Amino acid sequence: MTTMGLFSKDIKSMNDLFEHQLRDIYYAENQIVKALPKMIEKASNTELRNGFSEHLEQTKNHVTRLEQIFEMQDLTPEGVDCPAIDGIIEETDEISGEVDDKRVLDAALIAAAQAVEHYEIARYGTLIAWARELGRTDCVSPLEKTLEEEKATDEKLSSLAETNVNLKAAE
Amino acid sequence: MTTMGLFSKDIKSMNDLFEHQLRDIYYAENQIVKALPKMIEKASNTELRNGFSEHLEQTKNHVTRLEQIFEMQDLTPEGVDCPAIDGIIEETDEISGEVDDKRVLDAALIAAAQAVEHYEIARYGTLIAWARELGRTDCVSPLEKTLEEEKATDEKLSSLAETNVNLKAAE
Repeated sequence: MTTMGLFSKDIKSMNDLFEHQLRDIYYAENQIVKALPKMIEKASNTELRNGFSEHLEQTKNHVTRLEQIFEMQDLTPEGVDCPAIDGIIEETDEISGEVDDKRVLDAALIAAAQAVEHYEIARYGTLIAWARELGRTDCVSPLEKTLEEEKATDEKLSSLAETNVNLKAAE
Repeated sequence: MTTMGLFSKDIKSMNDLFEHQLRDIYYAENQIVKALPKMIEKASNTELRNGFSEHLEQTKNHVTRLEQIFEMQDLTPEGVDCPAIDGIIEETDEISGEVDDKRVLDAALIAAAQAVEHYEIARYGTLIAWARELGRTDCVSPLEKTLEEEKATDEKLSSLAETNVNLKAAE
């Protein structure tokens, strides 16, 4: 995957915008694949570590699904810089560098992962709406499959936040 | 509001983490107050412009609500750098600089606003979970009020994306 510092062309149509958004989330998913192993390493709670590991495998599938969508449209899978996901991951690194207590760190990691999930939920929601409007029904179903997985991950993280890690951290 | 480049202290407890997250979203809400007038200026669709204007007023209320929460805890309202919201807003500026067609620009603005909303939904969700665990029930209700408003805004944007702007842009 290569990334471009600037857009190689102006965005003139909804098709261009759709393609740009695909490249944005493709970059983001690849950055998440790189970030998750560090998060797994930092997490203490077993359920959280397993959840992150499972989500890493899912994320690799999301990358493959995006590559299939690029292919469906005769496009080369290629990312564009996505300052949003870079910022979210940077914030994760910063905050987890500040926390020593393992249980507080787990709470911070869950929060960071939920910010990542919500970014993806927003982006896939937009892509699905645009794919429908553009009549690209072949793209809708794989995008929806990924969206459902992101939502399920977010829900799992919410219940982990509420029941497990925080209860211990607030002792 | 002043912002700090680095954290003034390590995060040792869930209380510290909660306070840090409050400062993060306080910074973010203030950046959104600055970004929305530019988005209103760029939007063409009347419903979208009105939606952004209404949300600007809501966002100012969210800032005030956060200031009240700081006061409840004898804290000075002060932000911390939030690379995540900076990245999301930077991406909005970048993409809207690339789009000439008004209707495509509206679609890009809606997508950008939804990324902002989802960031806030993640952060307020986390803050509410932590406030509950920490027994800070006085903070829960104002945080929930804001979360509900962010969710409602996201839903309005979704229906705008699906029915209005994109239909026209895909013509």
